[in-house]
Amino acid sequence: MSKPFMFEKPIGMRDTLPQLYEAKNQIRQDMKEELKLWGYQSIETPTLEYYETVGVASAILDQQLFKLLDQRGNTLVLRPDMTAPIARLAASSLKDVSVPLRLAYDANVFRAQHDEGGRPAEFEQIGIELIGDETSSADGEVIALMIASLKKVGLGHFKIAIGHVGYVNALLLDVVGNEERANVLRRFLYEKNYVGYRQHVKSLSLSSIDKSRLLQLLNLRGDFSKLEDAKELVTNGEGKKALEELEKLIGVLDCYGITDFVKLDLNLVMHMSYYTGPVFEAYSDNLGTPIASGGRYDELLQKFNRPAPATGFGIRLDLLVKALGLKADQNPITCIIYSNERRKDAIEQAQQKRQEGLAVVLQDLSGVKDVDQFSKGYEEIIYCIGKNGKGDK
Amino acid sequence: MSKPFMFEKPIGMRDTLPQLYEAKNQIRQDMKEELKLWGYQSIETPTLEYYETVGVASAILDQQLFKLLDQRGNTLVLRPDMTAPIARLAASSLKDVSVPLRLAYDANVFRAQHDEGGRPAEFEQIGIELIGDETSSADGEVIALMIASLKKVGLGHFKIAIGHVGYVNALLLDVVGNEERANVLRRFLYEKNYVGYRQHVKSLSLSSIDKSRLLQLLNLRGDFSKLEDAKELVTNGEGKKALEELEKLIGVLDCYGITDFVKLDLNLVMHMSYYTGPVFEAYSDNLGTPIASGGRYDELLQKFNRPAPATGFGIRLDLLVKALGLKADQNPITCIIYSNERRKDAIEQAQQKRQEGLAVVLQDLSGVKDVDQFSKGYEEIIYCIGKNGKGDK
Repeated sequence: MSKPFMFEKPIGMRDTLPQLYEAKNQIRQDMKEELKLWGYQSIETPTLEYYETVGVASAILDQQLFKLLDQRGNTLVLRPDMTAPIARLAASSLKDVSVPLRLAYDANVFRAQHDEGGRPAEFEQIGIELIGDETSSADGEVIALMIASLKKVGLGHFKIAIGHVGYVNALLLDVVGNEERANVLRRFLYEKNYVGYRQHVKSLSLSSIDKSRLLQLLNLRGDFSKLEDAKELVTNGEGKKALEELEKLIGVLDCYGITDFVKLDLNLVMHMSYYTGPVFEAYSDNLGTPIASGGRYDELLQKFNRPAPATGFGIRLDLLVKALGLKADQNPITCIIYSNERRKDAIEQAQQKRQEGLAVVLQDLSGVKDVDQFSKGYEEIIYCIGKNGKGDK
Repeated sequence: MSKPFMFEKPIGMRDTLPQLYEAKNQIRQDMKEELKLWGYQSIETPTLEYYETVGVASAILDQQLFKLLDQRGNTLVLRPDMTAPIARLAASSLKDVSVPLRLAYDANVFRAQHDEGGRPAEFEQIGIELIGDETSSADGEVIALMIASLKKVGLGHFKIAIGHVGYVNALLLDVVGNEERANVLRRFLYEKNYVGYRQHVKSLSLSSIDKSRLLQLLNLRGDFSKLEDAKELVTNGEGKKALEELEKLIGVLDCYGITDFVKLDLNLVMHMSYYTGPVFEAYSDNLGTPIASGGRYDELLQKFNRPAPATGFGIRLDLLVKALGLKADQNPITCIIYSNERRKDAIEQAQQKRQEGLAVVLQDLSGVKDVDQFSKGYEEIIYCIGKNGKGDK
């Protein structure tokens, strides 16, 4: 254990400099405006929650949680997601508000990283939760709003992959018989390691028909016609129900006129273990990782004593900025450099320009060591120097 | 140690519900706009920092820090303020940007609370740092910007108390002779416990002249004429220098035309030990605690190897909202309740209204259990039910 150098930041922690900040902030504002137009109301929850409540409910791997002890010996966590805190909120402070409840958030979430692999340990998520509506209309609304938000911020080329947790479960359990064995396969799917999945399937002691069924799952990605193949592959109740839900959902998406953005992906397995129904991920053409994801979680709320179906999505702001590309144009700033005797004059000029909406730095000449160097940072420099009373530039 | 109940939050942690969120967000946006107009550029730093770097530099009492260990055995802290992280940033990522440097932030900071005394353990601070300018113009700009921000968000009645760390130090050390004894007196002043201060002074083994000087300090609050009394009370070099700086600063404030907002308070002693020069606090008429504070800290940057004078302020958003009073008017939301066969029609109506800037919730009738109850939350309800094609409400 070596002492950290004075400038160092903990693993996975990032600073946001002004240019990136402006890009992020523009997207943040546009996106929040869209969520508001769809009637979602914003809330905030604390950064720290009890491990026993939100930490356990969050379904993020324990080793990814930042944990600490409070004075009373309770374990606290830095919130690893916003869905569990909102479930807590919906079940406590908002318990008397009637459902369906539409909530929006914009918050940093935390996942401990164990090496400097480039993955952030803290990132900003903007998202919504629609609580208390079990219909496909709710699933469709959430996807439609995610698409509207991405379009609003100017993302051009993206696709939404839609799957169903129930369908994958139905197939895997039908073939391999127990959760433990299903989980091994799920892990490959979650990691999108299809080569590993194939190899693992081949190594299993199963009939060739069963192996073939597991391998056919990998083909269930593409346009909606894959639903017909899916129906043949799984014929049990849970599988059928999942496909019926997906068909209804596609009907809703069709009403929104957004089926062009959507493709089917029945291999989709999500990180968060609380999902129970339709799930989805948004991909930008120029990025390998999903910039947004979400789905239905009908069993989380009951952990907080307010059983209710729910669905929602979260967008990762850092990835969205990456997908959009950092716009270079920063807000131009005018700088008025003044000498002592002209201070009042300079202040008046600055206030005038600010009232017109211009960003203006006021700088006392005697506070600058290297005027040439300093001046480079500004769009325009106005000198207000010398004793000529209320003179101009 | 009892297990926390499922809804509980850690001590001092708060949820922000929609109404409060909107009030906070309005203030946040207005304030950030003002900071931008004055040429301050926004940055973000991580929630977690190394204890050895930012934690130690921050000067918040150790017992108020939230600490945790990372996998490598380093102690991390949840940032207790933004000044130290920005000093780290100015000395690392921004080391090549020439000073004076004007940075703005909007961030949550953390201070562990040991009982539910109503004090938040996490609160949002909006503020600025002006780095690399030692002039009184810089001190004046920071105070002028703080006043402009408070006016911008509609705060009517408030005052800025201005003091000087150097003056208090000069008097206390001159009389009691060492830091340890001075610290006892500083603590009373910091807590604004003037009764305690008086009693303590009386109990000290000092000459009656010395005691009288310590007690006279308490009179040095009020209008600028108190500066003359202050000059008589302390005649050593440090004290004189402090008063000269204050006089220059008042001259700058006069140029901004804001001396009406300002009063002198030479008893002002700040929480943060890194302050070195003029310090100030903003008080709203209707609140006992300062809603904003700041001052000069010329020695913090050198801890990060980039020696530079600096000054800045931070506003506590929670207290500012309290001082302003929560505006009751929430954004009105229209709700369109539709039946399945009218979904497409309902979606079109909603999109139309959203384009006009109205917030619209779309609700599938079959997703609502209690329509009467649900309807209460909305400004207007439009029913889009029945089979009559593209009919209206």
